[in-house]
Order: sequence, then C-alpha cells, then structure tokens
Amino acid sequence: MNLTNQQFRLANRPTGLPDRDTWELTEEAVPDPGDGELVVEALYVSLDPAMRTWLNEGESYVPPVGVGEVMRALGVGQVIASRDASFEEGDHVTGLVGVQRYAVVPAKRVVKVDDSLVPLTCHLNALGIPGMTAYFGLLEIGHPNAGETVVVSAAAGAVGSLAGQIARIKGCRAIGIAGGEEKCRLLTGEYGFDAAIDYKTADVSRELRRLCPDGIDVFFDNVGGAILEAALRNLARGARIVICGAVSQYNERSMAGPRNYMNLLVKRARMEGFVIFDYADRYAEAGRELAGWIASGQLISREHVVAGLETFPETLLMLYRGENIGKLVLGVGAD
Amino acid sequence: MNLTNQQFRLANRPTGLPDRDTWELTEEAVPDPGDGELVVEALYVSLDPAMRTWLNEGESYVPPVGVGEVMRALGVGQVIASRDASFEEGDHVTGLVGVQRYAVVPAKRVVKVDDSLVPLTCHLNALGIPGMTAYFGLLEIGHPNAGETVVVSAAAGAVGSLAGQIARIKGCRAIGIAGGEEKCRLLTGEYGFDAAIDYKTADVSRELRRLCPDGIDVFFDNVGGAILEAALRNLARGARIVICGAVSQYNERSMAGPRNYMNLLVKRARMEGFVIFDYADRYAEAGRELAGWIASGQLISREHVVAGLETFPETLLMLYRGENIGKLVLGVGAD
Repeated sequence: MNLTNQQFRLANRPTGLPDRDTWELTEEAVPDPGDGELVVEALYVSLDPAMRTWLNEGESYVPPVGVGEVMRALGVGQVIASRDASFEEGDHVTGLVGVQRYAVVPAKRVVKVDDSLVPLTCHLNALGIPGMTAYFGLLEIGHPNAGETVVVSAAAGAVGSLAGQIARIKGCRAIGIAGGEEKCRLLTGEYGFDAAIDYKTADVSRELRRLCPDGIDVFFDNVGGAILEAALRNLARGARIVICGAVSQYNERSMAGPRNYMNLLVKRARMEGFVIFDYADRYAEAGRELAGWIASGQLISREHVVAGLETFPETLLMLYRGENIGKLVLGVGAD
Repeated sequence: MNLTNQQFRLANRPTGLPDRDTWELTEEAVPDPGDGELVVEALYVSLDPAMRTWLNEGESYVPPVGVGEVMRALGVGQVIASRDASFEEGDHVTGLVGVQRYAVVPAKRVVKVDDSLVPLTCHLNALGIPGMTAYFGLLEIGHPNAGETVVVSAAAGAVGSLAGQIARIKGCRAIGIAGGEEKCRLLTGEYGFDAAIDYKTADVSRELRRLCPDGIDVFFDNVGGAILEAALRNLARGARIVICGAVSQYNERSMAGPRNYMNLLVKRARMEGFVIFDYADRYAEAGRELAGWIASGQLISREHVVAGLETFPETLLMLYRGENIGKLVLGVGAD
C-alpha cells in the first residue's frame, strides 16, 4: 500500500485521568489487506466516556485494552482497498477502527453507512451506539410512560441529549442535569427539555425537589456520585433508575457507591444496568425509528468535532471535564 | 381497669447503637377502653432490625417514632377487655401493640390469630411480617426460577431463614451467609440450605465465587455494606438483588453505598426495594401457603424468645450483634 499509519497505543495504564504518558503515538507501514479484509481510512473517531473504563485491568463488559495495543474506538471511514466482494473503494463504513489513520479490518466487522441523508458523524451519534444506548436504555430499562417525569444526567452529552429528546417524543416531561449555562440553554432550547439544572451552580437535590414535586419516575444516569444520590433522594414510588454510566467516577481510584441506596426500598424503586450490545439484533429497527425522528425534526443529533488525530490525548479529556457539547468526535481525515 | 402499664418510651434519639439512655421505662394506669376498643395484654413483642431505622428523624417507609412515644412494635397478646362485638375476652390477637404490657387499641387495628395449629410466636415469624417479607420479597422482587442460585444474607435471621427455605421449596439452590459456626450448621442442617458461608471467618467474596461458579441469580440482602459488595462482585448475568434491609448500616452515622454498583451494568442486573405493606391485600393468600408448608414440614419457623419486658433495651441489641438465632421475640406475659 505504501501508506504510513499513525496509531495511538496504550503505553501505561493510568491512575486518575489519562495523560500524555498513557499513550504512545507510533508509526508503521499499512499492511496489504488479506482475503476478506478491507483497508479503511479513518475519517471520524468516536470518543466516549466509557473509554476510560477500558484502560483498567479486570472484568468489565468488554475486555480491557492491552498495554501496547492500538486504543479501541468506533469510527467511520472510507474503504481505500477491498479484498471482499461486498465492498468497493469509496464505500463509507463504520466499525471498531481504533485511534489510528488506517485500519485493516475483516469486512464482516464493519457495516456500510449512507451519508446521503445525514452527515457521516451522525452514524457515531444518534444512528450509532449513543443513539442505541439512549433508545434501548430509556425504553427497555426505564419503561417511561406518557406523563411521567424523566430526569437525565450529563444531559448535554451524546447519550443524555438523545435520551431526553426520546423521553419528550414518548410524551414524558424531561429534565436535564448539565454543567454550565450554555449547556442548560441548549437543553431547554434546541433539545426541547422541559427544564434544566446546572449542577455547577445549583443545589441539585433541591432543584430536583422543586422541579419534580411528585418525584422522579425515571432517572437515566450517566454520572454517578453526588448526582445519583441527589436523584435517589427525590424518587417517586416505583421509580426506575437506568444505570448507563458513571462518568464522575471513572477517573477515581475508588468508586463511590450511592450512600442512600436504601431509598430504593422506601420508594419501591429499582436500579438496573444494561449493555447495549445485547440489543444488537434490534439496532436496525431502532435505527429506522431514530432516522425517522431526525427526518421529521423531532430529534437533533449534534456532534462536537475536534480536528486532528494528534490531539487525541487532550481531546479525550474534554469528556471528563465536561467541555464537549454534543457527541465528541475526533476528525481524522484530511478534509 | 385498675391495671398498671409499663411502657418503653423513646427518650432520646440515639446515634449509633441505642442504649439505656435511649429509653425511658414509664408507668401509668391502663385507661378504660372506649367504644370499639380493646385492652390487649401483650404476651410476645416482636423485635426487628428495622426498629433502629424508626428511631431516626426523617422520611422512611414509616414515620419515625416520636420522642416521648411508646416504642412501636408488633406483638401478639390476649384480649382482656373488649368494647367491640367482634372480639371476646380471651381472644388471641396480633397487631401494633408497642413495647408495653397493655395496649388499648381500636379493634379494627388487630386481627385474631389461631394458636391451635402453630405456637403464638409463629404469628410474629413465618405467619407474620417476616414470613410475608420473605415470601413477597423473594417471589415478587427476586423472581427465582427453579435451578437458579439464590444467596441470602443474615440467613439465620427471621426473614433470611424463611427466604432461603422458600427458595429451596421453589427448586432453587440456596446459599446462606451468617455469622458463626452454630448458625451455619443450622442453615445446612435444620433449614436445608445447600451451603453456608460464615462471614466471621471466611472471605465472603471468594466463597461466593467458589460456591456460585455461574454467579448469583438472586441475592436477597438483609445486610448491606461489605456483604452486598461481595455479592455484587459475583452476580450472574441478569441477576436480581432484593433490597430487604441493611442491618450492618443501621447504627452507622453515615450509610455506606455499594462502591461496585456498576457491576449492575456489567451483569445487566437490577437492585430493587420493596415495602411489605404494599402486599397487605395478599397476606391471607401467602399465609395459607406458608401454613401449608409448615404443616408439611417443608418450612421451619424458629423463634428465639427472651423473657422479660424489662430486658428490652439489651435484648434489642442482640439483633445488631447477631446474637439471636431465629426470630427474636420478647416474652412479656406472666407465663
């Protein structure tokens, strides 16, 4: 191929926030694809809060990234060489491309995406894993009923903004918790949430009590920590807490557990986790419904693109500092 | 009536374990019953771990006991005066009699109990609130399926021993966690558990891993704290955690939350609380089934009776020190 790849590899398992020492930027020649393989030039790489959990040793819902391995990441790219009859040069595809310029992947591990109706980055957001996560997490674990109150944490983030919008589509009141005025304005403006709470300036528990006088029916949690405890203090009877993430805790040495979890007893409530891959056989069905909502203007898929593969170590940290607005995506392509 | 009552009243809200200063033993004349009221002479008073939570101010599933009020307690007793057509002197009844020798109560707040088939104390255990709690908590919240592994904490206690036995009746493997050799022998002997873990000497997490190589399907938790964390580390996919109590935490200034609650996500599991009073309209149905199991020898209702109203402050502490074996009951009657 005569192409040089650039790859971010895990150099050292971090404690706390990852930094430049966590990563090594390496170069190597792109090998020729084998039978049934493709060479994909990455255009956009998805940066996700859960990436931090993949850097830890030990059991999780996916194996950890090994030291020396290319950092795992979803992405969209363009096929530049194909040894599989189903793909041609120029096809756009999505899959686990990793944090690198070129990925040599088995053709059956990627899927074609259509950029004629939505931007390519939308396939890393509302039509990608964040969309599936918001859709199945809210609907299958949260069981929201029309007229109920749904509270979403990290509501200006990729999954949170979609979960709140889907709650509204399903006839619920949606209240979002986010950091900063700009994000809160986005929630009640562009995304159509009924109310927003700025956790940086407000007493979250008091605001939840004020905004949810009858309690929270569904809490879709991406954050954990003090925000989860504030929600537990304000549950309605029979509430459902959807455990989607705990971004406030991923960089801590020791996770904090919700000290008031016994409110689950007082309120006859439940707290339940899920892993989106379990719903893979229903992605297509969900994707059609989500695409329909986008087309009708009911659902907004907003991406925050930062250009430059080489910015990966710093750009990733934006997620843990709450600096991205919308789905964080690394722009890798030349354009 | 010319009877003198003795009553344990809440004198001071405790921090940590209650002690003698928590209570005041007062005497007063027993008033004559009004229309529709009964005078009940207490025979047995139920001592329950949740009593500690009633001593704290603030919201719970029942209002706190007020300072100066007679301590709330279930009990069984005998009607010694009746101003209600449905009850006669000599009837045995159960209800909220309080920690006192005589209770003047509205007739509609107590129910008659039959001591011809089971001992009176059984109405404070398998046929009382502990039985209902084990029955509905395990079956309605835990949803155990035959062949699954059910783990119970505080398994030698009232609710725990019944929950484990019901799990066995439903065709599950039952594993109990309890403190000390004697209790563990009781679990695998008299109660028929498949295995027991002595938390005082064993590494609970390691033992759970050994005894549940395919993970825990249902964890019925009465304890919280480190035991709950050990169970979370060993869940099967799709596990159900029944939050029944947290006796390890009731006397702590600040509750500890399960730091590894994100295992609910990894294992697609749920943690759910319940309050037994919600099932009141099904107590009779459950009571018939439980009585049938007792009659057929499948279910053992074991009570630990300590005699003497005056021992209440010390006897209550046995619950938090794990000193009772079976349902703890205070014997109040002359016999």
